[in-house]
Amino acid sequence: MSIVVPAGFRFAGVSCGIKQDPTREDLTLIVTDGPAVGVGVYTQNLVYAAPVAIDRQRTPSADIRVVVANSGNANACTGARGIRDAEAMAQMAAEACGAQPHQALVMSTGIIGQFLPMERISAGIRDAAVVLGSDQASFENAARGILTTDRGMKVAGRVLTLGDHTIHLAGMAKGAGMIGPRMATMLAVILTDAPLDVADAQHSLSAAVADSFNCISVEGHMSTNDTVLLLASGAAGGPPLTDSSLQLFQASLREVCIELAKMIPDDGEGASHRIAIEVCGAATRDDAHRIARTIADSALVKTAIAGGDPNWGRIVSAAGYAGVAFDPDRLSLSINGTRLYQFGQPVEFDVSATSRSIRENRETHLLLDLQQGPASLTFWTSDLTVDYVRFNADYHT
Amino acid sequence: MSIVVPAGFRFAGVSCGIKQDPTREDLTLIVTDGPAVGVGVYTQNLVYAAPVAIDRQRTPSADIRVVVANSGNANACTGARGIRDAEAMAQMAAEACGAQPHQALVMSTGIIGQFLPMERISAGIRDAAVVLGSDQASFENAARGILTTDRGMKVAGRVLTLGDHTIHLAGMAKGAGMIGPRMATMLAVILTDAPLDVADAQHSLSAAVADSFNCISVEGHMSTNDTVLLLASGAAGGPPLTDSSLQLFQASLREVCIELAKMIPDDGEGASHRIAIEVCGAATRDDAHRIARTIADSALVKTAIAGGDPNWGRIVSAAGYAGVAFDPDRLSLSINGTRLYQFGQPVEFDVSATSRSIRENRETHLLLDLQQGPASLTFWTSDLTVDYVRFNADYHT
Repeated sequence: MSIVVPAGFRFAGVSCGIKQDPTREDLTLIVTDGPAVGVGVYTQNLVYAAPVAIDRQRTPSADIRVVVANSGNANACTGARGIRDAEAMAQMAAEACGAQPHQALVMSTGIIGQFLPMERISAGIRDAAVVLGSDQASFENAARGILTTDRGMKVAGRVLTLGDHTIHLAGMAKGAGMIGPRMATMLAVILTDAPLDVADAQHSLSAAVADSFNCISVEGHMSTNDTVLLLASGAAGGPPLTDSSLQLFQASLREVCIELAKMIPDDGEGASHRIAIEVCGAATRDDAHRIARTIADSALVKTAIAGGDPNWGRIVSAAGYAGVAFDPDRLSLSINGTRLYQFGQPVEFDVSATSRSIRENRETHLLLDLQQGPASLTFWTSDLTVDYVRFNADYHT
Repeated sequence: MSIVVPAGFRFAGVSCGIKQDPTREDLTLIVTDGPAVGVGVYTQNLVYAAPVAIDRQRTPSADIRVVVANSGNANACTGARGIRDAEAMAQMAAEACGAQPHQALVMSTGIIGQFLPMERISAGIRDAAVVLGSDQASFENAARGILTTDRGMKVAGRVLTLGDHTIHLAGMAKGAGMIGPRMATMLAVILTDAPLDVADAQHSLSAAVADSFNCISVEGHMSTNDTVLLLASGAAGGPPLTDSSLQLFQASLREVCIELAKMIPDDGEGASHRIAIEVCGAATRDDAHRIARTIADSALVKTAIAGGDPNWGRIVSAAGYAGVAFDPDRLSLSINGTRLYQFGQPVEFDVSATSRSIRENRETHLLLDLQQGPASLTFWTSDLTVDYVRFNADYHT
């Protein structure tokens, strides 16, 4: 996949010895050429980690210069030592790049339960600062520096022309399990050279996250470290985007976020299927989200898909306990285009053909039509396999 | 386990060919000698099955004579045919016992997606009606007739003396997975010879269920058929219980319900541990319930316990996304009596000793102290093992 790197940024990803494998990057530095707009969307967990606490204070801002992230060992602490380590990490990154501490944002992911190895991180930041580059290889090193149990880097990009200006978006994400002993957290950084007003940047990111990173799950466990950042350098030139230009930018941002977000359940720990749950005809978007999420969280739905079973009973009954008012007699359900259930009743269908369609496709598409209203939404999750359990039960042996 | 059967009831459990194994009972009949008080607590699923629809209409009542239940094939339908089959089943049971149709309650559990084999059920009801008995063996046959994937019958009883009268409680339950292709539903019937006013019976059962069957999960998937019934024959004699007698009865009922309820996650599909999640110091009981249930629903907590790992991070972070307001810096956590986390910070503990304690005990006890208020609650769930996934993914091969 070829990503055109937005102007105004430099990148580095280095190995500083946090991960056991010395060939795997574990420290990422993203530096802007000048003050950039920086906005974030963070975990809704009441127990949130120190890096989230710091980034929440520092964003939204028109004066961000640095993002530093480490992987392999999460700073998941909420207490004084966690804050001290996260502040020190941000300060070291700022110093290494000639910025002020308040211009630096910080992210952290990996094993929880241990404090950060600050000496290695300090050395890693110094190493990264001298290899910063604005080419694609540097961008990809940075994208690899935030990975944990991911099978490969997760990147996406868009190029759009707005009048005289060509604008680039490039994003990187990580995530395969929500939190755990060898992994933690969903992280993403989206970079653009678009000129953006701070408020517009925040609004654009929040809207895009609502349709992307907030519509995915692996096992439904919300991390303490989830962070999505958007940095806009303005290096593409011109005044801040408004009106139709802003709308075109927002559409591209949403596409990049959805593309990155879908990579996460696709790479879910042990997953053999990505499941796309499309709920339409809901009275409100919130209703659609609750129903989709409840289905996505059902171990019985996830194991049925893993087993190639078009089990409408598990799906319909999960919808029924989502806490959303709807008329069950209007509910219809299709799997991979085959109608299994209509107006509150099962219908005849070719079970073996539908089962084959599940087994032979990486993505299984569930479509629930509530016939209650105009709202719709798609939610993506992973199936639940024996390998997921092995991975999350037997890691310490 | 010896259960003293309450006076005023007769029981039968027979095999009528719904289950493939002809040695396993699949039809249960419980008949009262005269009109009994009958009350129920039912699934909160918006999509509820026909037997629940009928029992909801017929309870609470002071005029119940029959409960008929089948296992092996659930009537999980919400439509016209499901209602017709459930009504027919109740009517056949009433006729076989000399009762009126409105005096009969009905329950159904087993494979979903197929209509009931009504001829077999009809023959089974006739067979059961001629072998009704008031002895313990008949009670146990009835208890076996509601089982599906359970490894054995789930029964509990109490005897209490109230003044001149000796009162008996005897309960039976089934459940190992919430719903699925070879199983469905949590069902329970509690029988007593206590004299009870209808309103007191309903209140007593609702209160007992709140602390028992509503505090358990296997994988958190709410069935369309969940039903708990209480039948009170009054055969112990005397006027309806009031005041301290009623309170003593309620305490015993609660104990029976908790004893039965705990058997369900203990027998959860593939379970290697029962997990008791005790939340104390909550502002409200509802807060405690939400936090306990969110932890119980976390695949990462359940796999950690399966793997013998005292993973405080997974437990604390699950509490953090339960949607309950609390101060994370007051939170403490113990596992099997060992403190792992205190006042918002991890504490030093002997990981290998705590891990051994998890591995060597069938029940793992999690204690979360929120220090926010006076409310507390215990919730029981199963761990999540490779066998659970195999059982629920590979059943059709």
